[in-house]
Amino acid sequence: MIIRRGTKQDVSSILSLITELAVFEKEPNAVVVTEADLLRDGFSENPLYYTFIAEENKEVIGMALYYYRYSTWKGKTIHLEDLIVRENKRGTGTGFALYKKIIEQGKLDGVKRIEWNVLEWNKNAIEFYKKSGAKILNDWRVVQIDENGINNFINLNS
Amino acid sequence: MIIRRGTKQDVSSILSLITELAVFEKEPNAVVVTEADLLRDGFSENPLYYTFIAEENKEVIGMALYYYRYSTWKGKTIHLEDLIVRENKRGTGTGFALYKKIIEQGKLDGVKRIEWNVLEWNKNAIEFYKKSGAKILNDWRVVQIDENGINNFINLNS
Repeated sequence: MIIRRGTKQDVSSILSLITELAVFEKEPNAVVVTEADLLRDGFSENPLYYTFIAEENKEVIGMALYYYRYSTWKGKTIHLEDLIVRENKRGTGTGFALYKKIIEQGKLDGVKRIEWNVLEWNKNAIEFYKKSGAKILNDWRVVQIDENGINNFINLNS
Repeated sequence: MIIRRGTKQDVSSILSLITELAVFEKEPNAVVVTEADLLRDGFSENPLYYTFIAEENKEVIGMALYYYRYSTWKGKTIHLEDLIVRENKRGTGTGFALYKKIIEQGKLDGVKRIEWNVLEWNKNAIEFYKKSGAKILNDWRVVQIDENGINNFINLNS
């Protein structure tokens, strides 16, 4: 198994892994991005995200997808958006290898923090993250307003 | 009161607002960014963040700071990192005006989602966000590994 940078040729594998994760997270219909979106957004001049690919026998078996954020306390940070290993390849060290690559990328970039989200019922993941030295911030909540919410808010307040 | 884009000249006001928020969030010593960091990171060619400033009588009384993220489900999104109003100016509609500006920016950019974090004890903020049409995602947790954690992990796994 090797870890390498993602390329344009990986876009269909990337989308397939994203969909696999959405199913695992009980949101099978949440994925609206297309291969064309992923190609434009990740592999043009100013990419909105970056990937590492885990490959075995020329087959993509996992991926870590990240981008940069900005903490007004710490400065530039890495956000790990997705860490995904194909179901039949879990427990083989692939997830750990991808995770390690992200931590090393953080070191390379000199960021003061790497951050991500986890579902609170995903106890295995939470244990793994804690053991690795990460902290779970139990007092913060994620808030989102979606496209519908944006449109409604604007209609009500203009 | 007017809302306008932040400029290089606002950097010291921006840092002072950031520090005020850190005190409110009970982390007075968490801010390590400097004016020089904020200047380089927000006002060079490829900015890591963007700001809107609320100004009254040529004085900065509030700020919204945001940047772009990438959802593998929805594509490009806006992350609202900070929405801050000086303590003596709260309850004057300044927070609402800044919030509205961010929602309008999301519409302008055509993003499918705007996202941020809130402290779960900040009930006033949570009520405000809910009333505006945003959703609190109670089942997600924020995970962070800081610079120390990054270094420890690398030492243990290399």
